[in-house]
Amino acid sequence: MSATTIRLYELAGVEDELRFSPYCWRVRLALLHKGQPFETVPWRFTEKDAIAFSGQSKVPVIVDGDRVVYDSWAIAEYLEDTYANCPSLFGGPSGKALSRFVTDWVETVLHPGILRLILVDVHAHLHQKDKDYFRRTREERFGMSLKDLCADREERIVSFRNDLTPLRHTLQRQPFLAGQEPAWADYVTFSAFQWARCVSPFPLLVSDDIVYAWRERMLDAFNGEGRKAKGYSY
Amino acid sequence: MSATTIRLYELAGVEDELRFSPYCWRVRLALLHKGQPFETVPWRFTEKDAIAFSGQSKVPVIVDGDRVVYDSWAIAEYLEDTYANCPSLFGGPSGKALSRFVTDWVETVLHPGILRLILVDVHAHLHQKDKDYFRRTREERFGMSLKDLCADREERIVSFRNDLTPLRHTLQRQPFLAGQEPAWADYVTFSAFQWARCVSPFPLLVSDDIVYAWRERMLDAFNGEGRKAKGYSY
Repeated sequence: MSATTIRLYELAGVEDELRFSPYCWRVRLALLHKGQPFETVPWRFTEKDAIAFSGQSKVPVIVDGDRVVYDSWAIAEYLEDTYANCPSLFGGPSGKALSRFVTDWVETVLHPGILRLILVDVHAHLHQKDKDYFRRTREERFGMSLKDLCADREERIVSFRNDLTPLRHTLQRQPFLAGQEPAWADYVTFSAFQWARCVSPFPLLVSDDIVYAWRERMLDAFNGEGRKAKGYSY
Repeated sequence: MSATTIRLYELAGVEDELRFSPYCWRVRLALLHKGQPFETVPWRFTEKDAIAFSGQSKVPVIVDGDRVVYDSWAIAEYLEDTYANCPSLFGGPSGKALSRFVTDWVETVLHPGILRLILVDVHAHLHQKDKDYFRRTREERFGMSLKDLCADREERIVSFRNDLTPLRHTLQRQPFLAGQEPAWADYVTFSAFQWARCVSPFPLLVSDDIVYAWRERMLDAFNGEGRKAKGYSY
């Protein structure tokens, strides 16, 4: 096992220490789970040149010795295979296959739901050099202004919380999605909430929700990595 | 390993061979997965006395020697622990924890969605002695007539198919939810579709949907157990 420090390129906001990308958060937590030393490099949307070496234009990207890996799922697979003797992110082939379903649920249900609640706040916390790029690309993608996208969030939060029903049921039976201890499925899901917590004053959860209690446990994981992050401490 | 034949009490419709309960289907497939010999006993909603020995009033119930187990998840746990040397339903502790999330997704997203599409057809296929009981209990539960419940199914099918998005994404990467081979997560999900197929002429899936192709594979599993079942072969 080499003592190489892994480098993680991570999306940053107006300040270097504001790290809000859900895709980067899940990788950061996976690195902590694997107990691998790593350092992060703040990156902005418009700094395409800084990660051109990876052959694509998005973070997270990790550099581990002479290996470059991008895409959060591919990074998780890489870490699981490369650091096979460290705690498992998936818990075997079945756990990996089912973790993929949780990842797809997060990306197709939670992320689109959260987008409509916080995207205007994401914009407000971006570095000045990213603001125009972000507004233009997102307004093109969604066909409406960022302001309109989040205009009805007081109503939308109701259906978002309803979409959490399967998560709520599972957490009534076990402390984490992955069972007795958190693993990739929890990191992916928590990172969606952490994205919001870092940039938005709009609370996604109410305190008597079992999902809130789980998020508290996740905020405490790895010596409070999530809780210490710059963000809104509701 | 004893050669006891397990007895499975299974919900039946107007004919003994019409078995449509999604909770019973998942247990039937779990028994086939474990390779355990079993026989089924047709049971109707109003035959509470026939399963009173289980201490509750719903199927599935299994009797394995002197053990009586009810509740499909508890039965899966029982089979996994008792027949630990047979193929695993969960694939270890992580797989089990994550299978619980898939089960909760099926029960809180798919089942309520399918209910609104087929409940009127379920009623049409019930044994005469169950019809009044079923109508009364369901109309009380949902606060509307069975007919009204399914009245707008041509519109509802659109949002139901949209709710399948995470499943669709996962199946783009792997042949089954549980990975290369089907297991509990697939049985639970498939059984929701099988419920509809047994009693309703209203097709839930279109043939160019990757979920349709997966369902075809599931219908073929265990020598076509699902395909041979009495139902609508759309």
